[in-house]
Amino acid sequence: MLLSEIAKIIGGELTGEDMEIEKVAEWESATERDLVFVFKSKDVAEIEDKTRARSLVIPSDGKAKKTHIKVEDPKLAMAKILKFFDFRVYPSGIHNTAVLGNNVELGENTGIGAYVVIGNNVKIGAGTKIFPGVVIGNNVEIGENCIIYPRNTIYDHVIIGNNVIIHSGCSIGVDGFGYVWDGKEHFKITHIGKVIIEDNVEIGGNTVIERATLGETRIGKGTKIGSLIMIGHNVKIGENCVIVSQSGIAGSSILGNGVIMAGQSGVSDHVKVGNNVVILAKSGVTKDVPDNTVVSGFPARPHSEEMKVQAILRKLPELWEEIRKLREKIGQTGNNK
Amino acid sequence: MLLSEIAKIIGGELTGEDMEIEKVAEWESATERDLVFVFKSKDVAEIEDKTRARSLVIPSDGKAKKTHIKVEDPKLAMAKILKFFDFRVYPSGIHNTAVLGNNVELGENTGIGAYVVIGNNVKIGAGTKIFPGVVIGNNVEIGENCIIYPRNTIYDHVIIGNNVIIHSGCSIGVDGFGYVWDGKEHFKITHIGKVIIEDNVEIGGNTVIERATLGETRIGKGTKIGSLIMIGHNVKIGENCVIVSQSGIAGSSILGNGVIMAGQSGVSDHVKVGNNVVILAKSGVTKDVPDNTVVSGFPARPHSEEMKVQAILRKLPELWEEIRKLREKIGQTGNNK
Amino acid sequence: MLLSEIAKIIGGELTGEDMEIEKVAEWESATERDLVFVFKSKDVAEIEDKTRARSLVIPSDGKAKKTHIKVEDPKLAMAKILKFFDFRVYPSGIHNTAVLGNNVELGENTGIGAYVVIGNNVKIGAGTKIFPGVVIGNNVEIGENCIIYPRNTIYDHVIIGNNVIIHSGCSIGVDGFGYVWDGKEHFKITHIGKVIIEDNVEIGGNTVIERATLGETRIGKGTKIGSLIMIGHNVKIGENCVIVSQSGIAGSSILGNGVIMAGQSGVSDHVKVGNNVVILAKSGVTKDVPDNTVVSGFPARPHSEEMKVQAILRKLPELWEEIRKLREKIGQTGNNK
Repeated sequence: MLLSEIAKIIGGELTGEDMEIEKVAEWESATERDLVFVFKSKDVAEIEDKTRARSLVIPSDGKAKKTHIKVEDPKLAMAKILKFFDFRVYPSGIHNTAVLGNNVELGENTGIGAYVVIGNNVKIGAGTKIFPGVVIGNNVEIGENCIIYPRNTIYDHVIIGNNVIIHSGCSIGVDGFGYVWDGKEHFKITHIGKVIIEDNVEIGGNTVIERATLGETRIGKGTKIGSLIMIGHNVKIGENCVIVSQSGIAGSSILGNGVIMAGQSGVSDHVKVGNNVVILAKSGVTKDVPDNTVVSGFPARPHSEEMKVQAILRKLPELWEEIRKLREKIGQTGNNK
Repeated sequence: MLLSEIAKIIGGELTGEDMEIEKVAEWESATERDLVFVFKSKDVAEIEDKTRARSLVIPSDGKAKKTHIKVEDPKLAMAKILKFFDFRVYPSGIHNTAVLGNNVELGENTGIGAYVVIGNNVKIGAGTKIFPGVVIGNNVEIGENCIIYPRNTIYDHVIIGNNVIIHSGCSIGVDGFGYVWDGKEHFKITHIGKVIIEDNVEIGGNTVIERATLGETRIGKGTKIGSLIMIGHNVKIGENCVIVSQSGIAGSSILGNGVIMAGQSGVSDHVKVGNNVVILAKSGVTKDVPDNTVVSGFPARPHSEEMKVQAILRKLPELWEEIRKLREKIGQTGNNK
Repeated sequence: MLLSEIAKIIGGELTGEDMEIEKVAEWESATERDLVFVFKSKDVAEIEDKTRARSLVIPSDGKAKKTHIKVEDPKLAMAKILKFFDFRVYPSGIHNTAVLGNNVELGENTGIGAYVVIGNNVKIGAGTKIFPGVVIGNNVEIGENCIIYPRNTIYDHVIIGNNVIIHSGCSIGVDGFGYVWDGKEHFKITHIGKVIIEDNVEIGGNTVIERATLGETRIGKGTKIGSLIMIGHNVKIGENCVIVSQSGIAGSSILGNGVIMAGQSGVSDHVKVGNNVVILAKSGVTKDVPDNTVVSGFPARPHSEEMKVQAILRKLPELWEEIRKLREKIGQTGNNK
């Protein structure tokens, strides 16, 4: 790929000699023929000095002596160009070992890998690729241009939009974790609801999503979900949320749009989290959070409050000592108890 | 299904015209032909007013104008009736792609799905359904009427009782995480023990259970285990426990009967948790807990104590200010240090 | 196996009559023909009295009346001998249902189980055993004498050393969780980097490892990783680390050698953790940690500091009361505000 072509794709301005690029690389290990992205203008001088790469992408306010492309956001530019250096091979056609149920509709250019099992009444949209070992239940719809990586389970009554990516090992549509104590045992609540995953959602590895009791569990458009995440029955997640790995959301909770859940955080059941809320790492939300709030700690509270508490927590030994001294002084001046 | 039939099954009293029911639904999305369950009597008036459904199940102390069935516990009633509206299809017969080892005994009406692999010396009880992609090792016993959802791995020497449900993606019987430092490397402790899962246990998606070093890891009768849970080697869990998703129990710990572990909680190794203990969300138990105790925090302590600490934590900035003032006053009245 | 043979293998001294051993067992359930390991010399008397086993392995400073083998470290001795009582069956040969891509090189005595799917340009070393249902992508290298348990996914560009064990259900090489907000949506950063797993690594069940954006994610030699663990893109883990179950390491962080992460702990992104650092259970490391430090809490700090804070935390109600009393006294002796 020529630098000039790359400049065109990422909407940047090329300065210096055009050349053929072999791949995008980290500056430390780049060869002469690689392209290196520098994210901060203050780093350009050092990196262009140390790397063997002869061409760079740099921020628009940066300066470089080597051949370079200037762009506003080098990270976004890198994201846009990396697709062209990704040579993964997708299943194409229907592998002869795939087991398809009755009434399976496949769109054009779908790829169904080896040992895929598909139930009855399933619709898979054009361009969607199902990797080996995926098991799909009955009454499932998968949209167009999705990628379902190996060894996913899609239970019955899961509806998936277009351009959805699901990484390996997920269990989508398991029964909700719901029981009623009947005096003798935990009586199982049968779950007959749906899971709905809207367009452009991506889901990491080994994540679990429960189907709804009745109604639906829903993941909104453009939301990105990491690995080893648990999403409870009847949860509604808004659009463009970012749910980082090992987080969990308990049954029937609702997240607005643009919510960020950092790693290993949690949301209790039946809680409403507003739009653009940020839930910091390891925190646990136990009650409703208004829009545009940053929360942390457990139980989670506004991060500014939690920070004050955390700051004093570190001074507790000092505080304790202070009290001791005050008590001593009082002993000298005040009444004894 | 007729309302009168439903009333019989859930042991309730029908008031109003009998009618055919299409399905159970949430009141918001119910159609005229759906049945709606109302859990609290105070909500009946509003819900019967707003829903399109013509029939309700309500608590025995509730009042409704529409056709309704009164029951003591509508949630339990719903659990009992939902089974009849669940139309999932189980594998039946032995799929011709299933690979069975030597000495595999299958009971009557077992169903073995596509691409199931079963080792040697395996016994599967009558009515048990094994979904596609499940891999079962050697010397495994599975009881009657179990449901093993797709893509589970059952390692060697796992013994499963009757009416057990295991959701997709679990790894049951992985080697315990045990090593001895030999001065040069972490020397692996080979695990040769069993996993025993008693009757009526249900296990969520992508959960991991380690086999014992020697002896057994045991999950007691009627215990319900959520998704993405880690159960260490040689753990013993009692009967009718509820272990919520993303919790973990480290090696050799013992839980009594009726223990509840809320989400993202943990129990350290070699700890004994008494009967009917409640371990609240995100807490971590590091030492023995007596029967009938509610614990929270990390390290977990009685919840009432933790609540006091949490209450004061929120007042710490205020406390700090108070000390400052006292110090000031003392400076005016007492001796200087 | 004869006791005298066992003594030779574990480098111990046999006292008493040589005999045939059937298996290694826990002392509580051992039969006369079993061998029992006692780890602490203070427990020998009680155990030899209560167990039915006729032979014991005891610490070198212990005393026993029954036949026994003395060794320096009975736990290590047990680890060494258990291998001989482990009769698991590995896949041998290439199962006729395995689907192999182009240019797959298999070493001598490799075993490829049923329904294994292998992509193009894959090299598998001598003696390596791949259990049923494993899916391997393209351009993968797996060394010698590895064990890949059932239903693992090894994505493209994963390089695995020798003697590596990967338990069931892992997803190795999923795309890193990386997006750039482009003003409208979270634009996906395509990941084209590698995962490198060095010799003698063991990985528990259902663990997820992300491939690097560029460059590599690397797990160092001899490191042991538990179950349900998340390792982010571009993470570098040193040699002989122990990462306990349900822990997570976010993108680009670096762990030195000999690091221990206890259960449910976490490391933020772009953090450097020194050699021999111990991260205690449930803690979260948010900034660099120097070598040889024990940290705990969230945000994690040196454990000694955290312990002081924790100790005072428990006394907070008392502290609060103390302040109240001081205030009262001051009211009597000092000026009113």
